[in-house]
Amino acid sequence: MKHIESESNASLKQWKKLHSRKEREKTGTFLLEGPHLIEEAIHSGAKLQHVIVEENYQMKDEWLKERFSLWSVPAKLMKQLSETEKPQGILAVCEMMDQPEDLIKPKGRYLLIDGVQDPGNLGTIIRTADSAGLDGVFLGEGTADLYNGKTVRSTQGSLFHLPVVKADLLQIIGQCKEQDIPVLSTSLQEAVDMRRASEVEGFALIVGNEGAGVQETLQKESTMNVKIPIFGQAESLNVSVATGILLYELQRNRS
Amino acid sequence: MKHIESESNASLKQWKKLHSRKEREKTGTFLLEGPHLIEEAIHSGAKLQHVIVEENYQMKDEWLKERFSLWSVPAKLMKQLSETEKPQGILAVCEMMDQPEDLIKPKGRYLLIDGVQDPGNLGTIIRTADSAGLDGVFLGEGTADLYNGKTVRSTQGSLFHLPVVKADLLQIIGQCKEQDIPVLSTSLQEAVDMRRASEVEGFALIVGNEGAGVQETLQKESTMNVKIPIFGQAESLNVSVATGILLYELQRNRS
Repeated sequence: MKHIESESNASLKQWKKLHSRKEREKTGTFLLEGPHLIEEAIHSGAKLQHVIVEENYQMKDEWLKERFSLWSVPAKLMKQLSETEKPQGILAVCEMMDQPEDLIKPKGRYLLIDGVQDPGNLGTIIRTADSAGLDGVFLGEGTADLYNGKTVRSTQGSLFHLPVVKADLLQIIGQCKEQDIPVLSTSLQEAVDMRRASEVEGFALIVGNEGAGVQETLQKESTMNVKIPIFGQAESLNVSVATGILLYELQRNRS
Repeated sequence: MKHIESESNASLKQWKKLHSRKEREKTGTFLLEGPHLIEEAIHSGAKLQHVIVEENYQMKDEWLKERFSLWSVPAKLMKQLSETEKPQGILAVCEMMDQPEDLIKPKGRYLLIDGVQDPGNLGTIIRTADSAGLDGVFLGEGTADLYNGKTVRSTQGSLFHLPVVKADLLQIIGQCKEQDIPVLSTSLQEAVDMRRASEVEGFALIVGNEGAGVQETLQKESTMNVKIPIFGQAESLNVSVATGILLYELQRNRS
């Protein structure tokens, strides 16, 4: 294990740059914080370039068999690297995952995310899509960055469990239709109660921006608009909650 | 409209103290930020003691007929009063709502929250309970403060739409059972798939802490433990998402 003591160490400075999206995209790497996420990454075969621990951190023996370079830093530097208020003592530089091409298969179940902006919402939605056993998630333009620290933490590791791909959603909609997969757009107007859409076999569900919802261009290309009934006085639901309700409603007959 | 220019103004200093739970509980008041929440408060009959606007803020004419004292402050002081990064130019000191006693009625629909700690989660759950048309929400010990700014904002005004009451959850469970309302506790172990519990008429659903779930003492007093099926590899769902899925599943037959 190598030790870094100085703020001006070149590696340390490089890792700190990964707080910015631009640098993450340039290098194809991102930061993972905490033992749980690192464990998920290792189990899923994601490649860790560096693992950085706070001095005296007790690392699990099995991890040490992995091939990555290991560094220790004083608490002060860990604080600079971490994006959380209470760093968990361990952090990794992880390579972005390769994603399979031609993801869309007959009877597949997909989620298309059109412009969800809050990283916490995006992460929670990916966690929900994992829990709901989807075959893939597509991130349209204007959607928060998958590799933002807040997004990654909110996924609770689910980003390693299913394909999550940046994509042109119009193209994806076209591919789904070619495979006879119904494309369901969430909407508050002119939409069918979700309970009448729930017998579908395979689906592509589109959820939209926190304020504006799904773009009209995408709604127009959808097979059907669906909505969640509102029984009270709320105007709408949080987008992560709405996604969860819809994904489970659409799969009521799944065993 | 009165104007405040100085940081040492006594009213201003008092309002700033409302950032702390202790002061909110002592005075029975809390802060509301932004035009949407203030509008919801006015419509629901909540009492606004003071409304504070940034200089040059254009206030809706209809609001000016309301009975509250109106203040203007420079942007610098608005920033101190606000708990958000981008203050919306208007803020109010609102009185906590009186809540009805004996809320539990036959065939009622209730949500019991056992120790949800994140104010954002709590607010989102209250918004979801409103959307799902519940008759009341009960906040057990260890749950985040309803009047925390983050909670209030995340409710998007739903805290004014249905009763939300601090309570001893064991007592509430007892009252529900007296009215023959089934008490359903969320649990990951020894629980029935939610889809087999969905024909109930009236229910009390208990959701629990982000990490620990529902306390065993409360689970033991429940009529039934229910769980959401996990079709993928996620270990669990975010508590707000889980609450939404369950509340809609339990009301599939509602029109």
